[in-house]
Amino acid sequence: MQSFETLSKQFAEKFDTRHFPEQPASLYEPNEYFLKLGGKRIRPVLCLMGNEMFDEIMPDAWHAATAIELFHNFTLIHDDIMDKAPLRRGKQTVHTKYNDSTALLAGDVMLVKAYEFLNKISTVQLHKVLLLFNKTAIEVCEGQQLDMDYELQDNVSMTDYLRMIELKTSVALAASLKIGALLGGGGERNQNLLYEFGRKLGIAFQVQDDYLDAFGDNAKTGKQVGGDILSNKKTFLLIHAMESGSHQKELKTLIKTNPSNKVEKVLNVYKDCKADEWALQLKNKYFDEALNHLEDIAVLSKRKEPLRELALFLVQRDF
Amino acid sequence: MQSFETLSKQFAEKFDTRHFPEQPASLYEPNEYFLKLGGKRIRPVLCLMGNEMFDEIMPDAWHAATAIELFHNFTLIHDDIMDKAPLRRGKQTVHTKYNDSTALLAGDVMLVKAYEFLNKISTVQLHKVLLLFNKTAIEVCEGQQLDMDYELQDNVSMTDYLRMIELKTSVALAASLKIGALLGGGGERNQNLLYEFGRKLGIAFQVQDDYLDAFGDNAKTGKQVGGDILSNKKTFLLIHAMESGSHQKELKTLIKTNPSNKVEKVLNVYKDCKADEWALQLKNKYFDEALNHLEDIAVLSKRKEPLRELALFLVQRDF
Repeated sequence: MQSFETLSKQFAEKFDTRHFPEQPASLYEPNEYFLKLGGKRIRPVLCLMGNEMFDEIMPDAWHAATAIELFHNFTLIHDDIMDKAPLRRGKQTVHTKYNDSTALLAGDVMLVKAYEFLNKISTVQLHKVLLLFNKTAIEVCEGQQLDMDYELQDNVSMTDYLRMIELKTSVALAASLKIGALLGGGGERNQNLLYEFGRKLGIAFQVQDDYLDAFGDNAKTGKQVGGDILSNKKTFLLIHAMESGSHQKELKTLIKTNPSNKVEKVLNVYKDCKADEWALQLKNKYFDEALNHLEDIAVLSKRKEPLRELALFLVQRDF
Repeated sequence: MQSFETLSKQFAEKFDTRHFPEQPASLYEPNEYFLKLGGKRIRPVLCLMGNEMFDEIMPDAWHAATAIELFHNFTLIHDDIMDKAPLRRGKQTVHTKYNDSTALLAGDVMLVKAYEFLNKISTVQLHKVLLLFNKTAIEVCEGQQLDMDYELQDNVSMTDYLRMIELKTSVALAASLKIGALLGGGGERNQNLLYEFGRKLGIAFQVQDDYLDAFGDNAKTGKQVGGDILSNKKTFLLIHAMESGSHQKELKTLIKTNPSNKVEKVLNVYKDCKADEWALQLKNKYFDEALNHLEDIAVLSKRKEPLRELALFLVQRDF
């Protein structure tokens, strides 16, 4: 049973190598550039941890973890184009450093490369892994589409927002764990419990993310306070405040008029309707549910320790 | 042994159904719209014909054919974004009818859907099919990148152009045939001969395409005469004329200055250096080589008849 840090280091050692040929450099240099920007590698490590809960890590789990990380990078490259994001991890995004067409194609080839790694998985497991991988990939695309749709809508219900977060963020975490469990020989019930653990954890993680953007310490987060507020991004806080009724009109005016003290004003609304307290409660609710699923898994408690620690770290972080 | 027309009709009957869920409509309506634009469905039928050369058509070949056609549509949606093409088959392209982000995501989800169909293939065959499918998918992306790179280059060698055409066009035809042969139980030697047949046929097809754009009868092709010349597209004819030396300077001036009689002038250059005759010879060279590979395949000659007919049709067409 290894910790997130140990596995993350091991994964980085294997993953931080050249994945693409030299030529055509105009296509593959952007891919290598983007992979070198690094990342927390949470998803592939979840896959390895899902495996290790049931058995020693199999070669297949390394292939799956690599595919999962490549898939994640594919989504980032394409999302950055759609979001017109200039920076990722403090560095230029692919479409900014090169151009939109190159980023589009670099993403495409990254996705196919993910399938090349999946195809290294043993024949007996391949079909099942692909089934879940494909389903998840489609859900992630749906989540991104809903996210873009909601940007253009004045009103988004909490139910709709939750579903979007689930698709865009949670299912990839959940599927990474489940694929690991499957490859580690975990039974179907245990696989599904691990999936639910990941799904709930993903939501708790996003609530924390939205919370920190508004109420975090920007010295720790390294982000502009109220970045989401300034860009009128839908968040758990905004939707809660809108749904709590009495502040809806004021919020709509603030969103439309963009006054210079917008962040301060919106934060005041959040505090007035206690959106901060509500968000922490919501996070804890999903976190507790996640832990309950983890507890239900029929393996010795100590085998769950690394995942328990990681979960705690992910939802209690203040950066 | 069925003809292209018969198989094409059968494929259309199976394929022309809804492939995507209803929701989110903002993502899936564009996909359904694009698939309804139709197409010649050459690649999936090549897959079916590759199977039928060796045995009755297996369910797996239908899955593979569907995946191949979905993959082809994915490339078209993304290529249209990159090429800023307003129309496809006389109708609005996805990014024109909707927007770039939707087209990007619609393409992504179309590619994953292709993998969902591949994952219906029997376990014993799945790995091999994926191996060739992934390799081909990556090559097609490389071809598109080279095509974009060459647009920006003044000089492209015939060798480089040929390689680009091979990647962008030929390998997909070749792989469709080979996957069909594999699923139909053809031996490895026969599979590879069929691949080579497709690869050479693809080049012959592209030479004919380039030829018709310059020397075709626009009443038959339905295209503007000299469309490639007007858009300064690299073609077999242009590269040949550039490489033949004596007209290089004149061609470069015409490309740079875009005079109103550019098509006429460039066509005169082509005729002066006999690029038209040369192109027909080149086409016949690749066509003959393709047929030789077909002849080498160790099955009864009559089993090759539908493919021979299709090949003849593809390179002798005047539209």
